[in-house]
Amino acid sequence: MSIKIKNGRIITATDDYIADIFVDGETIKAIGKDLPIDADSTIDASGKLVFPGGIDPHVHLDMPFMGTFSSDTHETGTRAALFGGTTTVIDFVLQKQGHSLKEALAEWKSRATGTAAGDYSFHMAVTDFNDNTKAEIQEMVENEGITSFKTFMAYKGALMIDDSQMIGLMQEVKKQGGLVTVHATNGDVIDFLVAKHKREGKLSPLYHYLSQPEVTEAEASGRFSDMADYTDCPGYIVHMTCEGALNAVRNATRRNQKVFVETCIQYLLLDASLYEAGGSLDFEGAKWVMSPPLRQKKDQQTLWAGINQGLVQVVATDHCPFMWAQKLMGKDDFSKIPNGHPAIENRMELLFSEGVGKGKITLNKYVEVACTNAAKIFGMFPRKGTLAVGSDADIVIFDPNEKHTLSAKTHHMNVDYSGYEGWEVTGKVKTVLLRGNVVIDANKCLVEKGNGQFIKRNKVSGKI
Amino acid sequence: MSIKIKNGRIITATDDYIADIFVDGETIKAIGKDLPIDADSTIDASGKLVFPGGIDPHVHLDMPFMGTFSSDTHETGTRAALFGGTTTVIDFVLQKQGHSLKEALAEWKSRATGTAAGDYSFHMAVTDFNDNTKAEIQEMVENEGITSFKTFMAYKGALMIDDSQMIGLMQEVKKQGGLVTVHATNGDVIDFLVAKHKREGKLSPLYHYLSQPEVTEAEASGRFSDMADYTDCPGYIVHMTCEGALNAVRNATRRNQKVFVETCIQYLLLDASLYEAGGSLDFEGAKWVMSPPLRQKKDQQTLWAGINQGLVQVVATDHCPFMWAQKLMGKDDFSKIPNGHPAIENRMELLFSEGVGKGKITLNKYVEVACTNAAKIFGMFPRKGTLAVGSDADIVIFDPNEKHTLSAKTHHMNVDYSGYEGWEVTGKVKTVLLRGNVVIDANKCLVEKGNGQFIKRNKVSGKI
Amino acid sequence: MSIKIKNGRIITATDDYIADIFVDGETIKAIGKDLPIDADSTIDASGKLVFPGGIDPHVHLDMPFMGTFSSDTHETGTRAALFGGTTTVIDFVLQKQGHSLKEALAEWKSRATGTAAGDYSFHMAVTDFNDNTKAEIQEMVENEGITSFKTFMAYKGALMIDDSQMIGLMQEVKKQGGLVTVHATNGDVIDFLVAKHKREGKLSPLYHYLSQPEVTEAEASGRFSDMADYTDCPGYIVHMTCEGALNAVRNATRRNQKVFVETCIQYLLLDASLYEAGGSLDFEGAKWVMSPPLRQKKDQQTLWAGINQGLVQVVATDHCPFMWAQKLMGKDDFSKIPNGHPAIENRMELLFSEGVGKGKITLNKYVEVACTNAAKIFGMFPRKGTLAVGSDADIVIFDPNEKHTLSAKTHHMNVDYSGYEGWEVTGKVKTVLLRGNVVIDANKCLVEKGNGQFIKRNKVSGKI
Amino acid sequence: MSIKIKNGRIITATDDYIADIFVDGETIKAIGKDLPIDADSTIDASGKLVFPGGIDPHVHLDMPFMGTFSSDTHETGTRAALFGGTTTVIDFVLQKQGHSLKEALAEWKSRATGTAAGDYSFHMAVTDFNDNTKAEIQEMVENEGITSFKTFMAYKGALMIDDSQMIGLMQEVKKQGGLVTVHATNGDVIDFLVAKHKREGKLSPLYHYLSQPEVTEAEASGRFSDMADYTDCPGYIVHMTCEGALNAVRNATRRNQKVFVETCIQYLLLDASLYEAGGSLDFEGAKWVMSPPLRQKKDQQTLWAGINQGLVQVVATDHCPFMWAQKLMGKDDFSKIPNGHPAIENRMELLFSEGVGKGKITLNKYVEVACTNAAKIFGMFPRKGTLAVGSDADIVIFDPNEKHTLSAKTHHMNVDYSGYEGWEVTGKVKTVLLRGNVVIDANKCLVEKGNGQFIKRNKVSGKI
Repeated sequence: MSIKIKNGRIITATDDYIADIFVDGETIKAIGKDLPIDADSTIDASGKLVFPGGIDPHVHLDMPFMGTFSSDTHETGTRAALFGGTTTVIDFVLQKQGHSLKEALAEWKSRATGTAAGDYSFHMAVTDFNDNTKAEIQEMVENEGITSFKTFMAYKGALMIDDSQMIGLMQEVKKQGGLVTVHATNGDVIDFLVAKHKREGKLSPLYHYLSQPEVTEAEASGRFSDMADYTDCPGYIVHMTCEGALNAVRNATRRNQKVFVETCIQYLLLDASLYEAGGSLDFEGAKWVMSPPLRQKKDQQTLWAGINQGLVQVVATDHCPFMWAQKLMGKDDFSKIPNGHPAIENRMELLFSEGVGKGKITLNKYVEVACTNAAKIFGMFPRKGTLAVGSDADIVIFDPNEKHTLSAKTHHMNVDYSGYEGWEVTGKVKTVLLRGNVVIDANKCLVEKGNGQFIKRNKVSGKI
Repeated sequence: MSIKIKNGRIITATDDYIADIFVDGETIKAIGKDLPIDADSTIDASGKLVFPGGIDPHVHLDMPFMGTFSSDTHETGTRAALFGGTTTVIDFVLQKQGHSLKEALAEWKSRATGTAAGDYSFHMAVTDFNDNTKAEIQEMVENEGITSFKTFMAYKGALMIDDSQMIGLMQEVKKQGGLVTVHATNGDVIDFLVAKHKREGKLSPLYHYLSQPEVTEAEASGRFSDMADYTDCPGYIVHMTCEGALNAVRNATRRNQKVFVETCIQYLLLDASLYEAGGSLDFEGAKWVMSPPLRQKKDQQTLWAGINQGLVQVVATDHCPFMWAQKLMGKDDFSKIPNGHPAIENRMELLFSEGVGKGKITLNKYVEVACTNAAKIFGMFPRKGTLAVGSDADIVIFDPNEKHTLSAKTHHMNVDYSGYEGWEVTGKVKTVLLRGNVVIDANKCLVEKGNGQFIKRNKVSGKI
Repeated sequence: MSIKIKNGRIITATDDYIADIFVDGETIKAIGKDLPIDADSTIDASGKLVFPGGIDPHVHLDMPFMGTFSSDTHETGTRAALFGGTTTVIDFVLQKQGHSLKEALAEWKSRATGTAAGDYSFHMAVTDFNDNTKAEIQEMVENEGITSFKTFMAYKGALMIDDSQMIGLMQEVKKQGGLVTVHATNGDVIDFLVAKHKREGKLSPLYHYLSQPEVTEAEASGRFSDMADYTDCPGYIVHMTCEGALNAVRNATRRNQKVFVETCIQYLLLDASLYEAGGSLDFEGAKWVMSPPLRQKKDQQTLWAGINQGLVQVVATDHCPFMWAQKLMGKDDFSKIPNGHPAIENRMELLFSEGVGKGKITLNKYVEVACTNAAKIFGMFPRKGTLAVGSDADIVIFDPNEKHTLSAKTHHMNVDYSGYEGWEVTGKVKTVLLRGNVVIDANKCLVEKGNGQFIKRNKVSGKI
Repeated sequence: MSIKIKNGRIITATDDYIADIFVDGETIKAIGKDLPIDADSTIDASGKLVFPGGIDPHVHLDMPFMGTFSSDTHETGTRAALFGGTTTVIDFVLQKQGHSLKEALAEWKSRATGTAAGDYSFHMAVTDFNDNTKAEIQEMVENEGITSFKTFMAYKGALMIDDSQMIGLMQEVKKQGGLVTVHATNGDVIDFLVAKHKREGKLSPLYHYLSQPEVTEAEASGRFSDMADYTDCPGYIVHMTCEGALNAVRNATRRNQKVFVETCIQYLLLDASLYEAGGSLDFEGAKWVMSPPLRQKKDQQTLWAGINQGLVQVVATDHCPFMWAQKLMGKDDFSKIPNGHPAIENRMELLFSEGVGKGKITLNKYVEVACTNAAKIFGMFPRKGTLAVGSDADIVIFDPNEKHTLSAKTHHMNVDYSGYEGWEVTGKVKTVLLRGNVVIDANKCLVEKGNGQFIKRNKVSGKI
């Protein structure tokens, strides 16, 4: 089965030209001007952009939480991702403290295998690093194709590891050819502030925000960079939100260090005024209760600049949706609000509209931070993340001019509100191919659950 | 006339895959696996790397100096460049103070037109910015395809403009869609130190180095960044050599600014110990008398790190060769030594051998800093700087394993010494195509003078 | 003639205690509790603060300007200073380009000698550094007691020296045991902006401010620090106004350098909104047309913090008053407005009221930055700047609680407007002694012109 | 009982003059030139320096450790301090986790009361911050005169509090008018490295050093500064050793913060080469096993510069002596070596000889960092730390020219080795007064145990 995509404007992290793409089977076989090769079917992409399928390396699907689960399964989440032009996601397996990595992986496989509509991989979150865990790192890297290890500097007693474990983990991961990623924040300080606000009866979503001041993230980003420097382990900071934290990474560059940085679409576009839009007691802000919280407008400027400066490599989502009914678990106590917001479907269109459309970033930079860098950093390149001969034919055909409005009424994520309700974007995903098959066209998903493959990833060097 | 390059490992700033490239006429028409298109001739690139022709955006060919000229003409210089895998260079037109840009351009055209073997473009060095010059900027950009304007913060009375002129130039260049580049150093301080050393009878090449301390470059790099920030004009610092200067750019990032940085191959590989290798009075160091001078080993580390950190975008040469007899003009006075060293032919192989070969940078980063970024920053992309459908077929076929030794005996530059005599490199340029023609093969140049075209460049945005 | 000041609360840069001070002749002879020494007269200072006479190391008295002079002579200026608790000032001698330092000194002496009411010294402003000037440095230091050399990085063609001269001067001054001070700003950029604004018909005082953006001062402060570091010469930046400039000094500390910093009272208290308080065309702002101009509120915060951080050592005034009729010379062109504002009389009371009174600085820090540090940095210590046995009895008796309102109606400066009209301050100078004589009491000045002495200063080390 | 000290050169943190000091009872009553007041006795201080008794705010006397105690009791320690010109020390009370502050204070009082020869105070080390502890803070401040609270970011399970407790403590201490001090280091990382080295059989003193890399201290110094900034609590970092840590404080100044910094005499004078002077297995280095360990020469330069830059306020000792037999507890395992080295007697002479004598700091700066700042920061001023009327007559008469050699054979500390054996110093303590009594003279201590008083301290503001 072959497809020819004709006359599209092809954009990669480097290139920008008009040509035909010939797809045969799951991969790209040729790219050329008026390509003299016949295909089983043809898609006319004239006037359209053609870029690699997006990669969202930070999503939480079907994640267990307080007896319930994040509301997108691997099926609904990856399907919504496909609608939004994201063909591959990396989900997080969470080790349970006292248990092995293997057990956790088995549990996650039990939910994801056979259900995902789009391709996916796993980060392994190490929440209990000890001699047993240490012995499992090699197996994860060599046998399971899981080369990135997530750590939490918060959620003591549940997910957090201390700095001793961090150093130990880094030394082992470095040895095995992997990468350590981190939720960089000072969990102890946050715990203190949460408890204080609760004691004082300050229970609305605004206090979620006020319990995680910028300094908690800035401090921990610096501390993580210090430890990565000491161990010479490749490091990656997830969901960075603020100037203070980016300055910590900037400071680290003075000693010739390179730490990878991911931000998320919401931190580029939304700000903390949403937490009190309806007054300090309003619960509406629960829609954006996530960790870290939204920040200030000055932080948005810093993050956009960081992308162009080469300090920020990836724009992800930290997609972790909960139904409004689930959010209401925290109606009387912000600390009970399930953390997370839905964005897996909206990332590519929002980043295009607000980033490329408004002149903040170039088209190449767009592809770089939305598709390519994640593939490179996490060991999926060149299979994923680019449009090149031999790569998986994960392709988005995109109308850069079509305007439309985001809404829970029309989105495909399994969540009954939108973080961007009524937001008008310019640019729309028209057709999506995943490994050579058209999976999205004319606003329809053409594949079923189970279409998605688990992607084993390669070792990484920390250089891209 | 068409050519198929078969089975090479194709490297761009982003991609890395094995495929055939089909070239028809001057450009790339198709890229594919086992490409089913017949060509007039075929090159087997199995086991070889195939990457874009290098771009060296900093060369001085046939440059008038003290009644003589830099020893490579546009013919010999671009031919040597082709031997070394560099298919396009940007040479500098130097306005004479009191004269117009147009006059200078005419003079440079008189030497370059019809002589260059490889493709070339011009930067316009503005040495006398006034109302007349200002009026010429638009013409240069719109009619001549010259969109980058070089400035000197040194050489008072000859090339230097003061900061008032700099601001004025930046505002006009910004308006016209161009870029200001700079030799960032404190010329006044250097003039003082040169005079002082001469007064003290300190006349050997070592004192060339000691007359240009790191602080002169660091200060001026910060000052230039400040002015670029104030005017919001895209800025580019040429031939950066040291930690102090890179820290100045780093500091500028704190206010969300992006300044482009070029280093040169010599600053990554050589250090100031060469100036006194034969003792403080030895003249051998004259081979490396250039401005800025070579620095310390710690500066090399900073520059390599800067490349990976995204702070340094380009590795050029500042190629400006002089015969040993010319260097001898300064035998008794370092300030009379013609400044410059030969590297146009060696850059690509040295950077590969020392950078990629020794694990300092990836293959993609190699292409990015040696080929692609210069094309993007200076408005030649996507015609130059990449391997993509529609781009000029400027292609290097490279054996990554072949070892050879650099020497004046074998190089093609018109200069009777080598800056790298006896340096063993791993990796060799085997075949080079320029706009679809094989120009280098089997250590022979297959084209004559006049083969090179002048490349008109596009407006630039300061974002890549 | 002896005086006993009884029971005052004595404040020095270090100490804070209640005691009697016994003054005999010109100096302090003893300090003690219930001091059993009889004096010719006694002053009861119970409930009052007693601190050293203020030192204002930055004033321009009787300064020639465009055919006229700054409106305070050495008589009126130093008398007003005495009223405000400042007993010693340092005025600036300005070399004329093409002339010698000696000539300039002679001219200044001709105006100051026999006229000053309070003590005074001179900085020598070197505006034309050459071999002749170089030879005069030693004479100034050794014979004239002038150990500080002022430089201008602005006012090209009149006062500015270039960086070559700066380095030369620094090396000579270092050798002779002096200090180089600087008006750190980028004169070329300012010249450009002034010309541009004038060309555009933007002629109101607001454009004075807009012609000297923060970056001009920040850049030059960094550049001066770099040169001081290279030459190892003690350096002092006068009238610093902004965060950018202080950050330049902060950056310099990373290489273990110490540069002295002076701010002025107006930069701590006033901001640039005054330039357009009456709209962008209003001329009222001419009252505060000075160079550098007033800045933003964030800059005030930085400067106050800088004082407590030990980065800012001195609070001066840059007192340079002009009558309103003189200011009107620039009615139609801001560049014709004589630069400067009157503050010599207000500095000590304003700094007390806004600094100590509002909890921003301690009493000791107040004395340190208003009196002591200037004496130490400029070689007048321990004769001036403290209350210690053997020091000149320059003493202020101050009521910390008395409220009064500043006004041109009541001030003693020879200028017909106040920069602080209607400003209510808490704390008032009651009695002032200069070298053992009561010179101010009950709002009267008890000495005539000629009472002030010229203070020869000592060599300095750059360490305090 | 009165004493007149005649004709000494009196040095305070600000002043420098020759005069007589008249002491009556415990305090200074008068200072003057040829003071016409009779005294019971007279000391001729001609040709001598006279400065305030030193204050060492960081000592551990009679501190329980592994079933034994640090070898200097409050008697021997404070007596040795007096010999060395230090008249007041601040010792550390260590709360036991699970117990109250009060219990700890009672225990320490039981050892110190009636034994100390010199004056002393206590810091309260809070090792278990909870609601009970919180309630005790006010009592400590108001009733006990203990206004500084020490925290440990290391020694988990014994002394360490986590960041949650730190924030809580800071908020309470700020409220009560106190100061939080910190041993800033990353205890978790150190624990990891200690365990790793032990596992690898690396057990000599060298590995003590290698278990506490610079980054552990740098990171924690930044983290502590962040928390102090967030809570607006006055903060003080004890025993800072390195450039990385001082840069963390420097970075904090950019947000207008001021954090106090103490270094110790050993970090200014000794370096880590001592740990392997006898080879990597040598045990001699145990003499300098302390935490943090000695660092590099570049760190010494940074600390000296920091003193002159106003970033480092205090030079203390962290005196914590152990007999060689006690050190031998760690003969086969560096982690068993009691941490600490003896310096309480040597600090003032070493700092004078190496700092003032070698031109690194001025005499005033010497008194400031050795005497005055500690008194001000910790609420003992103006009673202690200066020579002023009304202050305690704690006075050192010092011969700046006398040379002598430090040795365990001659020192008075109760420890059988010297950290500075054979070190020749220029400058010697000749006579010491404590509260008006001569306590040291002619190399004899004239007072018995119990002579020292406990000094209740005042609330502090964080400004000096």
